Parts: sequence; structure tokens; C-alpha cells
Amino acid sequence: MDLIDEKIAQAVTILEELDIDLWLTYVRESDTIHDPCLDFILGGSCTWQSAFMITRSGHRIAIVGSLDKAGIEGTGRFSEVIGYVESIRDPLLEVLRREDPAQIAVNYSESSPLADGLTHGMYLQLCGHLAGGPFAPRLVTAEGIISALRGRKTPVELERIRSAVDLTIGLFDEVSGFMKPGRTEKEIASFLTAAVEREGVEPAWDPSHCPAVFTGPDSAGAHAGPTDRPVETGHVLNIDFGVRLDDYCSDLQRTWYFLWPGEEEPPEPVVRAFTTVVEAVQIAADGLRPGVECWAVDDLARSHIIGRGYADFPHALGHQIGRFAHDGSGVLCPRWERYGTLPYMKVEKGQVYTLEPRITIEGHGVATVEEIVVVTEDGCRFLSPPQREIICIPASS
Amino acid sequence: MDLIDEKIAQAVTILEELDIDLWLTYVRESDTIHDPCLDFILGGSCTWQSAFMITRSGHRIAIVGSLDKAGIEGTGRFSEVIGYVESIRDPLLEVLRREDPAQIAVNYSESSPLADGLTHGMYLQLCGHLAGGPFAPRLVTAEGIISALRGRKTPVELERIRSAVDLTIGLFDEVSGFMKPGRTEKEIASFLTAAVEREGVEPAWDPSHCPAVFTGPDSAGAHAGPTDRPVETGHVLNIDFGVRLDDYCSDLQRTWYFLWPGEEEPPEPVVRAFTTVVEAVQIAADGLRPGVECWAVDDLARSHIIGRGYADFPHALGHQIGRFAHDGSGVLCPRWERYGTLPYMKVEKGQVYTLEPRITIEGHGVATVEEIVVVTEDGCRFLSPPQREIICIPASS
Repeated sequence: MDLIDEKIAQAVTILEELDIDLWLTYVRESDTIHDPCLDFILGGSCTWQSAFMITRSGHRIAIVGSLDKAGIEGTGRFSEVIGYVESIRDPLLEVLRREDPAQIAVNYSESSPLADGLTHGMYLQLCGHLAGGPFAPRLVTAEGIISALRGRKTPVELERIRSAVDLTIGLFDEVSGFMKPGRTEKEIASFLTAAVEREGVEPAWDPSHCPAVFTGPDSAGAHAGPTDRPVETGHVLNIDFGVRLDDYCSDLQRTWYFLWPGEEEPPEPVVRAFTTVVEAVQIAADGLRPGVECWAVDDLARSHIIGRGYADFPHALGHQIGRFAHDGSGVLCPRWERYGTLPYMKVEKGQVYTLEPRITIEGHGVATVEEIVVVTEDGCRFLSPPQREIICIPASS
Repeated sequence: MDLIDEKIAQAVTILEELDIDLWLTYVRESDTIHDPCLDFILGGSCTWQSAFMITRSGHRIAIVGSLDKAGIEGTGRFSEVIGYVESIRDPLLEVLRREDPAQIAVNYSESSPLADGLTHGMYLQLCGHLAGGPFAPRLVTAEGIISALRGRKTPVELERIRSAVDLTIGLFDEVSGFMKPGRTEKEIASFLTAAVEREGVEPAWDPSHCPAVFTGPDSAGAHAGPTDRPVETGHVLNIDFGVRLDDYCSDLQRTWYFLWPGEEEPPEPVVRAFTTVVEAVQIAADGLRPGVECWAVDDLARSHIIGRGYADFPHALGHQIGRFAHDGSGVLCPRWERYGTLPYMKVEKGQVYTLEPRITIEGHGVATVEEIVVVTEDGCRFLSPPQREIICIPASS
């Protein structure tokens, strides 16, 4: 039983738990616009309109264009593969009539990008196929199924994330040795990019800002690429970086300080801000456990930072991680409109979250740490030793 | 002016031509579910709900999450980049009020996968943002804009496709020298896969069936992976293969025949079928010109094959090609439901199509050729010399 078989079996138990009869993933040209759910239930691709169905009783039915049939059969994931030539409508209606599901959970979601692989054109098409029959009113969002499936990591998935995390921590150690005043953000990023290639892995997100390297005051802020700005003494530098190893990602941040000649530790404002970030991570970790609503965990860290007199940070405390750096549905985020229903989702055992608050230190730079934790029966566990001290780089090393 | 700037300028002329005031590409987490239009107008990625707008007057406005702002500004593609923290709603409404477009063309399409990057969840969200105001009724599909933009190749795009085609033709020559009875489909595919790596390019589609290699009677058919079946004398073998070079693809097919000892040419049924395929390609090319409806070109080739007593082939005669092996909207296809409105689209100058009819030869295998042509002012031109003769491999080479 490999990872995909495990996830398909998990999906069947989730259908039972959520009281849903059938989960339909409706897609086409999956090499072009790829519903990320296919990585869990198919591990292959399709060309024409295709319906991949998993039922609560464990049936796995695929309806695909006739020329895709052999390839989909070859994946071995589906107990029944039906090919069609002119239109998917008739075989689709036939399977639905036979299975007669009370609910048909479809791959779209307003709030969760990872559960939203159905394009609007395909939705319109599906409605056309079902129009006038009994099935159109039975369509519901598959958000709950997909959230659970992506969130609850199997032991194999967890091990893969841990390997990516371990590698990333090792590369942070390496790049520390490369850092000194005068090096530019781009040079530091290139050092890591070369290490990623050497290790035969991939950056965990868009390589234009993975790694993201920011040094000193008034840097570009998150999600921007490294610049030609050189590191100077007195700078706080932070890096946001992750790798994809065996299809699973890490996403971590670390913070460095560049000592002035004769300086033995960072100035008080830097220490205070960095310590506050570390505390916020620990306070959030202490409050992260199954059953808690996501926003409440975000609020623990955010309140701590605001309570110590710092500005609020303009992003979520943490996101889930998996096959993508931003994975799963529950997000540890404030109740802002852009997050839709995500803040109200409940934390579940087996989910893997980042914790990544941030404080801007005037005149120095940005202090961030980003840790990764897995939710356990009654709390959470760090997947690697968290950063507790700012890493100090001497003036002449 | 690089390729993206050229395509943005082209988009503005298309808006004028189609009498549309504003084109809105609404996306989120573009590294995860990637609207392929972003490759033409942004060349970067975004995290939160993002609105990329191009107006008929040439304004280019991006509204993105605040942490994405610097990165999107850094692409230099947008004349105005607006960041938001809590919700995209207010800045989006403000821009729409200011621009007051009579039509807002949005990135979805029932028929064209490449014009259908808007997910259904994002569509629901957009409708929520516009609810109760004047703009919701102005939403229309951007299918026409995206079809024209992807279809009409600039000289740079055409040159890139030609480079991918040239490389592919060269690799077909190489693999001919490797072929002999006893080699398996997988061995022949591996030869090409190694060549793809050596050349530093990528397969043009899912590497599990790019290249696709089929030898002998009753093989798996298109879109399946190569098997351990060995080539035998008397087999017809065909390969479907393409590369992605500099972001642009080729997609070509060639057919071989394995001579028996003493045999000097393929038996009559093989020659007749192969010749019919070649004729069908030429007849279609002779009829392919601007203004013709796509289905009519498909029908020329299909009728020729059926008229010579062969079975109909279960797929389109040809698709467009570009950044993907299956690109653009107009498809040279029959008027089957699965193709929606695509058969009724009109051929335009600058589009690049494959022509790929197929005939199964009982007891021998499948004869296919797939050629690539560019539509000119009054006809079309092959991008490489078409295969006119079946390639014969002697029994003991």
C-alpha cells in the first residue's frame, strides 16, 4: 500500500465521518490547470473532461476520454474506468443513477484554495450535464473532505516533511558560515539556491523569492525577491526558505544580527523584539491543540506582540504545510474577510502548521522566526528545534 | 520590450477589437493552482486574492495582498499596484468605479481549458464582492480575449516553437538508429528521455507518456505509457513526443515499420493506411486558412479517412500549441459535445496547429503522423518537413 492508496483509504473513512455518499473530482487537461487533489487520488493526468469518484462504500470510479482510459487504468487507483468518445454526460449520469448518492461533494471551495480545483467553466458544464435531473440539487462543496484529507498527515507524509525540515535546518547552518557584512541579499540567496541544486531538491515555492532574504531597515518585506542591498553591521537579516523533497515541503524562517566591532550582543531593542517573537511562537504552540478554532491560536501570538507595544503583523500566524508550502485548509489567521471561513476551522490531530509572527525593529530590520509543528492528541510538537536566540555574526569573521 | 510586454500590448489591441473595456484575471495562490494567463501578463506569482486588470486604454492595474506588493511591483508589468490587508473588496470596487467598464471580461470559459483559470470558489467570492452593485451584471467570459492572445503567436513565440520542433525532429532521427526488433517500448522511450535530459529541456507533457511509444497490434492507444512489449518484425510502431524549450512546446508523431528478413517494403495494407494518413494531413493543410471554422478542417481529414474505408479516429484532428502542448482555444475537432463551442471557432492568422489523424492497421499497429503548421495570411505552412514515407527498419541492422 503506497501513499496514494493510503490517502484513498483515508478519504473513504472521511466520507463516512462527514456523512457524504460520493466525492466527485471533475477536471480536464490536468497537466495545464492541475487540481492538486489528483496527487492524492490518481497520481496521473487526464486530457478531456474527467470525473474521478470515490464513494463512501469504497468504490473508485473514473470516467475519462477513451484515449486516456489505458493510462488511467494503468495507475491502478480506480476499480472501474469508463471511457467515452463524444460526451461524458451519459456515462456520468449512468454512474450517478446507479450509486444514487444523497450528496455529491464537488471539488470547489470559496475559502480554501487547495480545495478549489474545479474551474468555473467546468462547474457550468457540470450543471449543464445534471440540469433537469435529480442530481444538481445534491451538489455540495468537498471542502470538508479535502481539508481533512490534506490536513491529516499519514506517518509517511509526516516523515517526508520532517526530511525536508531537517535539510532546511542544515542549510541554514551552512549559510550562517557564509554571511558577513558586505554580502548582498542576492549573494546570500544564491548560496542557498546552489545548495538546493547540489542536494537535488527543489525550492518549496516560486524560486524568485525562495529563498527570500531581507537585510536591514526598510527592506521590501515578505514575498519579494532578494536585492543587491549589502548586509551592514547593525542589520537584522531574515530568511524565508523551504525545500520540496520527495513531493513534500518545508517552510522555515531564521533571523541573524550583524555585530558592530566590539559589540558582544545585539542592542536591547533587537533582543527585546526577537525575544517577543520567540515568546509568541511558544505561546501559540502552547495553545495549539485539536478542537481549538484556528483564529484563537493566531490571536494568542498576535495579542502577545501587540501587548508588548509592537505593530500588528499583516498576515496569518501560520498555515498548514504538505505537498505545497501553503497546504491544507485551516489557517491560523485573524478573522479578516480575505480568509473567508478559514479562521473558524478547528485544529485536528495530524495537521502540520507553521508558526511565523514578525516584528519590524526600527533602524535594524525584521525579526521573524518560522517554526513547523505537528498537532498531537493533546497539543503539538516542534518538528525541529526552534530558534531561541538570534544568530549573531561577528564584525570580522 | 520582452515577450510579456509584447503580449500585454497585444491584449490591449484585442480588447479594442472585441469592444471590451476591461479584462480581469482573478486568482490566488498562483503557485498552487496556476492560471496559465499569468505567464502572459505577469510572469510572477501571488498568494492572496489578486485582481490583475488590463483596460482597453492600456491601464494595467494589480490589486494584491500587501506582502505580495513589492514582488508584483518588481515585475514591472503593472502601472498601478495596490496592496491590501484585510479584504480585496474595497480596492477592487474603487478601481471598478473609477474605470467604470461597460464589460468586465473574467478568466473563465466553458469550452476552453486554457481560458478557464478562474476557480468556482473564486467566482463565488467575486460575485460576493460585487453583489448589490452595478458591476455584477457586467461580467462576461474572457474566452475571446484569451483565445486570441494565446492563439496569435508573435514572431518570438513562433521562433521558440520552431526551435522545439527542430530539436524534436532531430531526436526522432536519433531514435531511428536505436530501433530494432527486440527493443521494448520502454527502452525506446528511455532513449528519448535520456536525450531530453542531455539537451537540458523538458518533456512537453506528463513524462509518464511523453514520449508515448506504441508497437504492434492491440497496443494501449494514445495517452498511455510505454510498456515492456518488444518490437517484432512486421510491427508498425508510432511515437508521440514533444519537448518544452524556452517555455514553448513541440508535439509531433512519427511512424516506423519493421521489415521481415528479405522484405524490402511494408505490405500493402500498411502502405495504404500510412499513405491515407499522409494524404489526410495534406488535405487538411490545404483547407486550413483564416476564417474557416475549425470543425470544417477536421472534417476534411476525417472524411478522407472514412472515405477510404477506415474507422473514424476518436479524437480531434489537431489542437493548438504554445506554452503547452495543448494550447489556445480553437481546436480542429468534430462537433462532439465534449468540445463545446470549440469546433465553431474560426481559424486565425498566427495560430499554430497540430494535424494528427490516425489509422489502426489490423495485425500491424497504428499509423499516425502529427505535423505542426502555422496559419498564414491565406493558408498555412509546415514548421518542419512532414513525414511522407513510413520509416523502415531492416530486420538485422
